[in-house]
Amino acid sequence: MCTCAMYHTKDHYFGRNLDLEFSYQESVTITPRNFPIPFRQEGSMNNHYALIGMAFVCGGFPLYYDATNEFGLSMAGLNFPGNGYFFKPESDGKDNISPFEFIPWILGQCKNLNEARALLDKIRLVDIPFSKELPITPLHWMIGDQSGSIVVESVRDGLHIYDNPVGVMTNNPTFDKQLFRLNDYRGVSAGPSENTFAKGLDLDPYSRGMGGIGLPGDLSSGSRFVKVAFTKMNSISNDDEDSSVSQFFHILGSVEQQRGCCDLGDGKYEITIYSSCCNMDRGIYYYRTYDNSQISAVDMHHEDLDGRDLVSYTLVTKQQINQIN
Amino acid sequence: MCTCAMYHTKDHYFGRNLDLEFSYQESVTITPRNFPIPFRQEGSMNNHYALIGMAFVCGGFPLYYDATNEFGLSMAGLNFPGNGYFFKPESDGKDNISPFEFIPWILGQCKNLNEARALLDKIRLVDIPFSKELPITPLHWMIGDQSGSIVVESVRDGLHIYDNPVGVMTNNPTFDKQLFRLNDYRGVSAGPSENTFAKGLDLDPYSRGMGGIGLPGDLSSGSRFVKVAFTKMNSISNDDEDSSVSQFFHILGSVEQQRGCCDLGDGKYEITIYSSCCNMDRGIYYYRTYDNSQISAVDMHHEDLDGRDLVSYTLVTKQQINQIN
Amino acid sequence: MCTCAMYHTKDHYFGRNLDLEFSYQESVTITPRNFPIPFRQEGSMNNHYALIGMAFVCGGFPLYYDATNEFGLSMAGLNFPGNGYFFKPESDGKDNISPFEFIPWILGQCKNLNEARALLDKIRLVDIPFSKELPITPLHWMIGDQSGSIVVESVRDGLHIYDNPVGVMTNNPTFDKQLFRLNDYRGVSAGPSENTFAKGLDLDPYSRGMGGIGLPGDLSSGSRFVKVAFTKMNSISNDDEDSSVSQFFHILGSVEQQRGCCDLGDGKYEITIYSSCCNMDRGIYYYRTYDNSQISAVDMHHEDLDGRDLVSYTLVTKQQINQIN
Amino acid sequence: MCTCAMYHTKDHYFGRNLDLEFSYQESVTITPRNFPIPFRQEGSMNNHYALIGMAFVCGGFPLYYDATNEFGLSMAGLNFPGNGYFFKPESDGKDNISPFEFIPWILGQCKNLNEARALLDKIRLVDIPFSKELPITPLHWMIGDQSGSIVVESVRDGLHIYDNPVGVMTNNPTFDKQLFRLNDYRGVSAGPSENTFAKGLDLDPYSRGMGGIGLPGDLSSGSRFVKVAFTKMNSISNDDEDSSVSQFFHILGSVEQQRGCCDLGDGKYEITIYSSCCNMDRGIYYYRTYDNSQISAVDMHHEDLDGRDLVSYTLVTKQQINQIN
Repeated sequence: MCTCAMYHTKDHYFGRNLDLEFSYQESVTITPRNFPIPFRQEGSMNNHYALIGMAFVCGGFPLYYDATNEFGLSMAGLNFPGNGYFFKPESDGKDNISPFEFIPWILGQCKNLNEARALLDKIRLVDIPFSKELPITPLHWMIGDQSGSIVVESVRDGLHIYDNPVGVMTNNPTFDKQLFRLNDYRGVSAGPSENTFAKGLDLDPYSRGMGGIGLPGDLSSGSRFVKVAFTKMNSISNDDEDSSVSQFFHILGSVEQQRGCCDLGDGKYEITIYSSCCNMDRGIYYYRTYDNSQISAVDMHHEDLDGRDLVSYTLVTKQQINQIN
Repeated sequence: MCTCAMYHTKDHYFGRNLDLEFSYQESVTITPRNFPIPFRQEGSMNNHYALIGMAFVCGGFPLYYDATNEFGLSMAGLNFPGNGYFFKPESDGKDNISPFEFIPWILGQCKNLNEARALLDKIRLVDIPFSKELPITPLHWMIGDQSGSIVVESVRDGLHIYDNPVGVMTNNPTFDKQLFRLNDYRGVSAGPSENTFAKGLDLDPYSRGMGGIGLPGDLSSGSRFVKVAFTKMNSISNDDEDSSVSQFFHILGSVEQQRGCCDLGDGKYEITIYSSCCNMDRGIYYYRTYDNSQISAVDMHHEDLDGRDLVSYTLVTKQQINQIN
Repeated sequence: MCTCAMYHTKDHYFGRNLDLEFSYQESVTITPRNFPIPFRQEGSMNNHYALIGMAFVCGGFPLYYDATNEFGLSMAGLNFPGNGYFFKPESDGKDNISPFEFIPWILGQCKNLNEARALLDKIRLVDIPFSKELPITPLHWMIGDQSGSIVVESVRDGLHIYDNPVGVMTNNPTFDKQLFRLNDYRGVSAGPSENTFAKGLDLDPYSRGMGGIGLPGDLSSGSRFVKVAFTKMNSISNDDEDSSVSQFFHILGSVEQQRGCCDLGDGKYEITIYSSCCNMDRGIYYYRTYDNSQISAVDMHHEDLDGRDLVSYTLVTKQQINQIN
Repeated sequence: MCTCAMYHTKDHYFGRNLDLEFSYQESVTITPRNFPIPFRQEGSMNNHYALIGMAFVCGGFPLYYDATNEFGLSMAGLNFPGNGYFFKPESDGKDNISPFEFIPWILGQCKNLNEARALLDKIRLVDIPFSKELPITPLHWMIGDQSGSIVVESVRDGLHIYDNPVGVMTNNPTFDKQLFRLNDYRGVSAGPSENTFAKGLDLDPYSRGMGGIGLPGDLSSGSRFVKVAFTKMNSISNDDEDSSVSQFFHILGSVEQQRGCCDLGDGKYEITIYSSCCNMDRGIYYYRTYDNSQISAVDMHHEDLDGRDLVSYTLVTKQQINQIN
């Protein structure tokens, strides 16, 4: 379904896989500071922080899947079927924000997680769809800044905010269950395991990598969570931009969905439509698509961030092969 | 350690991951038809089929890791520690071939698997190292043509040739054990599983991809075999070149080794140094490296295949980012 | 640590494994109707339903591990370390009951689950230890009658009562997480699995029982929960008393702890000290111990249930071998 | 299907689970020294060592499932479907022995494994059925004495004899594959695991027994092999007879088959029909049946071992409950 991850070397990186069986016409979209953002219940926000991220721009509104603002605060919405629950708006002083407005609401106003937490204290996520054609999707969100990340889940019994010690998120089940599940994997390791099966029995470590035996390799959200947490938490790279970005895409690659391996029936297959990696400190949004493994990059600071108009770059989805001879 | 795979749509593709903690200076190397290949025990082969593949050229000799010849016959050598065993040369009419000579010996003379099988009938793999600095490495090989593939393993009790119904190979254990292990996974699926746990108990398929639960996700050779077999056997793509090549790299990506996740100690980590995909029908060799996710391509037919000199293209290992703005 | 289970044929059965590294001097203990039960905060209960179960009788008080009353209502307390949490007594109209009083409190007054639920509505489990030598143990409870079962967990955020569709319980984590985990096993089966790995690949069901591949076999509480749920939910037996009791002990046997396999260090090993099975309808308490595999039986209706004194039968722990010749 | 195990404290123990969906009328049968054993191709053996074990006596011939002779040499035949292969008799000096004759052939003549190995050097296992009604069953065998055990497998490419470092055996696949599979479990342990998942991530060992996570719990022969090897190799007990026998039955209990959990279709279920444990040093044969958990014992030295007639004791299959009150 989807995977989100953070990683840092000397800079900080935030990104995600979007796993679906179809694609809207999403594009890398910069929302400059003076683009007016109309909220359904909370009026229009005419001045705000600038954003870069992946969005489906619909009727002039940037429906962000994931984005980073000019201070590095980053946020991604991931599918949360059966769990995500949104409420009726009420006039009780809380901010009534629809899921599709949530990313600009937070990233438009907050410099960091502390400020985001303050806004989350008085938010109500409400069940207002963007349009008849685009009904409410059950989502949950990971929000990160340079200091760490949290997970926000609006479920039937209210809004839950979880600290995220692993800096990754997938989909179901709820984040407390996902985190708890990691306990069952405390004995796996990136290095070789000790032979602890039984005294006096010589067992052969016949392959490198056997310390990780037990890690799951299927594409369910529970298994992807364990796998990507392991990959991210054990990742090593140099701290320059190229090395860091490269490692980030390898982290996401560890839970990529290959066409055919998640069969939805009727000839439909869920695949990793795009993978993204945003340098939170520098506002550069990198991405790859299923059929174009070359990394493309869009730099928010190469645009006029004081503008009033969205800037969108259509994705380069065709394979860009470097013909050597 | 390493993974090899084949895939076909309307064309046929053969490639591999090279997983190591260091890199020789391998390059994409074309051996034209008239490059003299000196064999240690079997004289020099002065005319042969042309080859393209990844090689470490040492003292003028192309030490191929994997290669494809002009008819599509393809071959890769993968690490086989503790199992690969090579014999003393004998003068009994058999062909005494060293592991480092094996790929040019077969690909230089055979158009297809049938011809390769005939040569294998009279081969002895011998323990002659390339040089003092490059001692014998225990290897086994996958050989494929447009009709299928076989695995060749020289172990203490002799040479074994296995049909390969899944078209993938990793490392240990021996191929019969690897294939047998797949039986334990016959119940996993790309589609959703039926609820068969118990009558009368409603269990929730809370995520897509749960039919695959049970597939291993660690980096050991046994687990990579199961995972890549599943990915390859369930792969779906269009049959044009871009789609096919893209899907091939996704197959290999499913068992990629991320830096940090296979810790060898002393600050060394095994990673997927390169991934390759050769169009067997057209002689185009595609590759990516750990730090350059763009695909590069070398076409053997753009070279003079009747030449006498090796042609080598240094790998493009630096990330090639497509700067959009 | 411990496992509790229910099973029914034409009669109903409730029992448990007690898994510990040491034993108190527990005995099968009948509490007749007129034995006065002193509660620390709620006065003395001088008339109540009769109970049979396993108890450590300390200072004249039956500290029940598990028990059944004369109507069949049954209850067992199992270890719940790190999760079980008990509160300060308060004078707010709620019943302040200590964990060690909980079983007689419920079974002494309730004929069935409905009546138990009514009492649970106004209960507070409080942190009053039995004595200095017997401090509070973190426990949670399974309560069952002929209609089904519930789980009662007092944790930091209060008392949780869960319906229990599988009729088994172990220890950590909390019951909602345990139940959720079963979803991951929906594809395993008592019968053979279909070959769904991949089209066109013949995989051999080389053994009976392969449909269950994926079921865990270690002794952790999470794994025992899955294994015993599977065993219980798939259990088949005749409905006479001997067959039913036999099958019940096989259910508990599936998650038994063998000496040596759960090593606590310092030469201590957790083992299944006893397994019990109470016919809820007839008040017969069957048990086995680790070193005596013969089943012993105590029938509550063979005692004077209108008495005022506890009746205790020391466990038969020595192996009773039937010498044939 | 079946499991065989050995265990020793100060005495030595050999036994097995018989897992089937039906029962012949097997009985504990002593074959005294002068009972003439007719072999189909090798004449009659009129004087031999005495045997005790479980046999189906058919037409006066003891068809042993498992047995121990007066020196302690022990042997069990277990199902080996698809692998067991037996040859045509030939007149080449080899001993042509049918599977149903194999146990008396070895145990009748050999004091220990060394002597058994000598006989195995010149044996051919032949495809002569006992009768039309009892065709050849594919079997393999574990043979043990006080020094250790071996496995004997007659397959298409001949007879294989394997040293058995774990002293357990189940069914398919061949024993070399079974043993190799244990390597994948070298990281599991009876004690708690170290937290090696990732640096800086605190993971909670929320249950005892978590070091064993990864051990399989289904009833397939491959999984039972791993589970019983782990249980046996980690077993701890006192060394007196009661404690040793008790622990032995717990070892076999770890891979017991519960009715309903191995569903063969048509209302048939494979169950553990009996479990046996023979004190190899003293010739006492202990057993339990699915529906009688009390241990029964038959002592070969309580019979006239110089007799000429089989002595058989019908199994006690009815539950023997110790009624306490």
